[in-house]
Amino acid sequence: MSNYLTHPSTPHALKQQSLLDAFIEALQCFPGVGPKSAQRMALHLLQQDRKEGFCLATIMQRALTEIKKCTRCRALSEQTVCHLCQDTRREQQRICVVHTHYDMLAVESTGQFLGRYFVLHGALSPIDGIDGEALAVDLLVDWLQKDTIEEVILATNASAEGEMTSYYIQQQIHTLVSTISKLAQGIPTAGTLEYLDMNTLSLALQERKSFA
Amino acid sequence: MSNYLTHPSTPHALKQQSLLDAFIEALQCFPGVGPKSAQRMALHLLQQDRKEGFCLATIMQRALTEIKKCTRCRALSEQTVCHLCQDTRREQQRICVVHTHYDMLAVESTGQFLGRYFVLHGALSPIDGIDGEALAVDLLVDWLQKDTIEEVILATNASAEGEMTSYYIQQQIHTLVSTISKLAQGIPTAGTLEYLDMNTLSLALQERKSFA
Repeated sequence: MSNYLTHPSTPHALKQQSLLDAFIEALQCFPGVGPKSAQRMALHLLQQDRKEGFCLATIMQRALTEIKKCTRCRALSEQTVCHLCQDTRREQQRICVVHTHYDMLAVESTGQFLGRYFVLHGALSPIDGIDGEALAVDLLVDWLQKDTIEEVILATNASAEGEMTSYYIQQQIHTLVSTISKLAQGIPTAGTLEYLDMNTLSLALQERKSFA
Repeated sequence: MSNYLTHPSTPHALKQQSLLDAFIEALQCFPGVGPKSAQRMALHLLQQDRKEGFCLATIMQRALTEIKKCTRCRALSEQTVCHLCQDTRREQQRICVVHTHYDMLAVESTGQFLGRYFVLHGALSPIDGIDGEALAVDLLVDWLQKDTIEEVILATNASAEGEMTSYYIQQQIHTLVSTISKLAQGIPTAGTLEYLDMNTLSLALQERKSFA
């Protein structure tokens, strides 16, 4: 089935991949897309009106060419300095450090944080060769040296890599900023104690708050 | 969040869509991809090495341009006449009619059918304006008039549209071919009687076979 549309009379027919197969393989670069979903996606684009597909291909090429990292906060943006960094209404003295652009959008969606962000684009992972340089921590250090920043919130994941990243950044910036904070840990909203892991419950107990 | 990366100082900032938003919207042309998955897909392509993304965009454009319908069986193919239609080792006197290219791949994967296919690219649906012409039934009629075909298998879905399509094609071709057959209906493999719908069970009873 995989060489299904290959012309049988072309030389090396069995080794040559058909365009449809190549398309299905290329679609698997998306997260969570395996051979079956990719096949469905490819045939969907090919079986219907193809305008939509052409439009997607064009916009994909444009996005991959034009969207860069903001030179200040490293968020994805078409501009050299992103919209959030340019917005003078945002709190200039607070920076929230996040792993990914997704995390930034998640924090932003709470509406609780009005400062600016710094996107690491990853977590410290010596085994994968991801060090402080790959996360551009020096750019954050530069920023803290130039601007007066009161608080840096290290909104890293509560995983081993996240904790390690948080610790590393603390070491790099603790002389440059008065307050370094992290997100509160505890029971998630609507969390049931019975199904909670031991560590979370243990932390929630340690950090318990008395009723006002 | 939707106008997140729009430059605030450009005129009509709120109405103008950022390239990232446009990209996320375009990705939703894929089946089953909503705003959240599209966001994940877009950021995945933008956050990692972009070569893969460029490769996908290029191959998508090529596939949409070069892959056409086989002039004989209407399967998707880069060639004017597809690989299966050109293959002289296939049974020339049998045609299996299917709704979609997926269905053809599904029948092909059983290894039980060695003839050729005819892909309708849809099912009869007067309400959506899909008639016999849209399904290119005249192409099938032409084929049956020119070639000596012994059997046409109408492998349509067992749905109302499928049955209607099957009936319509029967009316068009019954004078041109000696045998017109349809797929057997009954209990699916590993099907449990308790959870089977009444119609399937009823059909399975009517079509019961005595032990040899």
